[in-house]
Amino acid sequence: MMLNGELLIGAQRQRGGAQAFQAIDPQQDRALDPLFYEADASQIDAACQLATGAFTVYSSLDLRQRARFLRQIGKNILALGDALIERAMQETALPRGRIEGERGRTIGQLNMFADVVENGAFQGVIIENALPNRKPLPRPDLRQRQVALGPVAVFGASNFPLAFSVAGGDTASALAAGCPVVVKAHPAHPGTSELVAGAVAEAVAQCELPEGVFSLLHGVSAQSGSALVKHPAICAVGFTGSRTGGLALLKLAQQRPVPIPLYAEMSSINPLLLLPAALQQRAASLAQGFVDSLTLGCGQFCTNPGIVFALDGADFDRFVQHACEAVRQKPSATMLTPAIAQACAQHAAALAALSGVQHLMYGQEKTGANQGQPQLLSVSAHDFINEPRMQNEVFGPVSLLVRCASQAELRAALRALQGQLTITLHLDAQDQPLAAELLPLLEQRAGRILANGFPTGVDVGYAMVHGGPFPATSDARTTSVGAAAIQRFLRPVCYQDLPAALLPPSVQH
Amino acid sequence: MMLNGELLIGAQRQRGGAQAFQAIDPQQDRALDPLFYEADASQIDAACQLATGAFTVYSSLDLRQRARFLRQIGKNILALGDALIERAMQETALPRGRIEGERGRTIGQLNMFADVVENGAFQGVIIENALPNRKPLPRPDLRQRQVALGPVAVFGASNFPLAFSVAGGDTASALAAGCPVVVKAHPAHPGTSELVAGAVAEAVAQCELPEGVFSLLHGVSAQSGSALVKHPAICAVGFTGSRTGGLALLKLAQQRPVPIPLYAEMSSINPLLLLPAALQQRAASLAQGFVDSLTLGCGQFCTNPGIVFALDGADFDRFVQHACEAVRQKPSATMLTPAIAQACAQHAAALAALSGVQHLMYGQEKTGANQGQPQLLSVSAHDFINEPRMQNEVFGPVSLLVRCASQAELRAALRALQGQLTITLHLDAQDQPLAAELLPLLEQRAGRILANGFPTGVDVGYAMVHGGPFPATSDARTTSVGAAAIQRFLRPVCYQDLPAALLPPSVQH
Repeated sequence: MMLNGELLIGAQRQRGGAQAFQAIDPQQDRALDPLFYEADASQIDAACQLATGAFTVYSSLDLRQRARFLRQIGKNILALGDALIERAMQETALPRGRIEGERGRTIGQLNMFADVVENGAFQGVIIENALPNRKPLPRPDLRQRQVALGPVAVFGASNFPLAFSVAGGDTASALAAGCPVVVKAHPAHPGTSELVAGAVAEAVAQCELPEGVFSLLHGVSAQSGSALVKHPAICAVGFTGSRTGGLALLKLAQQRPVPIPLYAEMSSINPLLLLPAALQQRAASLAQGFVDSLTLGCGQFCTNPGIVFALDGADFDRFVQHACEAVRQKPSATMLTPAIAQACAQHAAALAALSGVQHLMYGQEKTGANQGQPQLLSVSAHDFINEPRMQNEVFGPVSLLVRCASQAELRAALRALQGQLTITLHLDAQDQPLAAELLPLLEQRAGRILANGFPTGVDVGYAMVHGGPFPATSDARTTSVGAAAIQRFLRPVCYQDLPAALLPPSVQH
Repeated sequence: MMLNGELLIGAQRQRGGAQAFQAIDPQQDRALDPLFYEADASQIDAACQLATGAFTVYSSLDLRQRARFLRQIGKNILALGDALIERAMQETALPRGRIEGERGRTIGQLNMFADVVENGAFQGVIIENALPNRKPLPRPDLRQRQVALGPVAVFGASNFPLAFSVAGGDTASALAAGCPVVVKAHPAHPGTSELVAGAVAEAVAQCELPEGVFSLLHGVSAQSGSALVKHPAICAVGFTGSRTGGLALLKLAQQRPVPIPLYAEMSSINPLLLLPAALQQRAASLAQGFVDSLTLGCGQFCTNPGIVFALDGADFDRFVQHACEAVRQKPSATMLTPAIAQACAQHAAALAALSGVQHLMYGQEKTGANQGQPQLLSVSAHDFINEPRMQNEVFGPVSLLVRCASQAELRAALRALQGQLTITLHLDAQDQPLAAELLPLLEQRAGRILANGFPTGVDVGYAMVHGGPFPATSDARTTSVGAAAIQRFLRPVCYQDLPAALLPPSVQH
């Protein structure tokens, strides 16, 4: 399975017209073949035009065919076999087990959206038959359904080369909604992206769909992403990445002549709250669980626990002691890209330099290029409350332990919290009154509230919310994981008194 | 029932700290007592702080109590009796029948949202029980529900002093969602607003809710509205009004440190498409129906038919002739405000001055102050397609008839259309193939598609969509009329493995 470094403009493979770049093997710290080429303006335009051309046919496709297409993508990804796994491992330094698991999740996600499509409930059909004799005014026949927004741009994420990338959650949910997709591959894993894009394009052909249903663009410059978001054919954008990147694209999406929704999943520090009885009962196991979650995948999860709140005292001291011991034993590990490893060190240093922050413990020394070193820091809630920069995400295995002098200070610290993807409570039975009192505040701050678990690990199902108030995402009304993600790419249309023959099948009944 | 010109900051009546202003009786062209006073910055802040303080209690209120509150508002509005009707008539020049009908619609809307709240389905509860033996990973217990966003700012609209104002659709749906509301009254009907606000505040007291659930602010300056949208306590905004006003507020909402959704229903010219067989069969009755719809309420509806498309030829000539005759007989009528009457004349003149636009017919001469004069204009589709300014809304009884040389040109004109609240097809059986071919394009351009009717008249029910692609609204994914309007003020939260005792009642099952 040879990589050729080309774009996919619909069914056509083309060499990008702009600058060349290569993937980096972060473990070996060396460039990987082949050369990839960034799309130029005319290629971005061509992909978007094709998507527009495909929209009417694809969005009105029989739902069983749309579901078949999604399942076919999954089959084709599996058929890529070990070549896909190995290229993804090389480009990301993620271990085989993780990549294989992520492939399973990606295919499972496509299959779930196929089920969602076949079920049809996502169309939200509401029928109100005419009431010609209603007083004071007759009621017309009114039928509402959700329709697809139009072509969607998807930005692949660095940290999930399969599940949040070319055929990941954004693409799967947009295709499920009936929207053609133009993917901008993440430049950290262009080879993985090319392979998966081939699998999608093959499914487009196998299902005899218009080629514009899917295109893959490469890009390393900010301009290539900007041009895609600004293209008039694009009706919505899915993005997972940094806050800086997300906010830059959000601004572009808002400032277009026709503004469009941009769903950016950006930054979250995923607080853990260790309530008093739980902390007293199991400081040691909580510390171990926390450090395992913190260092999983070298801390490169959106839901990584970057901050811990607890009441100051002997129990918290024990927790800190155990956590430090656990971190001390954790190795440094290769991060996804050289830039991410560098940013991790810089952002950790910036956090450590803030007033009142104390260094507690490092993990084991770095042994190779592009590694991230685990680190624990601590601060008083008083200092935390006064310094919003302590809430800046450090993407990597770094966490800040916040000592609260009182329950009142804990509450004040929670009120000062910015929006989060997750907040986790560790509690015992005696902690329930306090937890119940805090819960409304937690609901206002996060998209998912966990008890006695760890936020890393996001189940792909019907009830999941992977979203949350700003700056966790740009749109708290949505989720980027789970069945409800389809709703991001839909809008309601009402049909009034249309002749039955004209009504779309889903509202005919 | 004396008006005192004061604000309502929660339960407290206060004179506004900023500039004084008066309502204008547009028919008599004279200022009405009493003086009203714009809220100053500290009063806006006080209302928002109170709303925040009320949020947790109000959003977690038992749903039956929330429904009771909505119904009580309706009862209190009805109890205002003729004083409300008369003041609204004075402030808007709208006739008694219209105001009484609008009161009925407003109360019906509150009662519908009470039903929606009691039903509970709006919470979108999804429960996935734990699957501890699932492979490769166990599934935790996951429960999703929609929660209220937080305090909402509502801007009253000029053209519906009851149904889109203080206790109108935005307020009713936000209160139904569990959000406290701070209303900025439209300065054209401050007296009507004070009366209705009193009815809401009385319901807050009768239902023993925290006073911050509702506040009324007055304001005439742009600053007062800006300060409200920028206030950190405000989590979403509902607005119905001009495109200029909506876009200005949208920019503010997007540029906040924490951006918030702003639902602006702004501008739409609500095209009518007269298909060939229908036009041939009933040019005269179509013309009469069109002109009646155009001049209803002096054209001051969001869904006013400001543009008509048809194929050129003898049938269209007959339509034009009948429409001109019908317009010629229509009187000029008093508009809502002096500024609206002035803008109507200006915008109509600007439209008439565009290249290729021809004046066809005026209605009867103006006989008093602040009147709007009906007018028909025409243009070729060719000129229409080349001049986006022809799509600028003229708020009033003015419409542009567009002659299309061919079906291809009709399609091109429709493709050039900006987003609309409504598009209406007039068709006979022989027109169905053409209509079926156009339908996907119409779905992409409008929130509601009607057949053989007129867009004025928006049924308040479960299937209605009063929304549409930009610039009809700022968010095509929503509706500002009908049961689905509640969804604008909700966001999903997922509870993972929470002890049953901690789970909110709606997700306990």
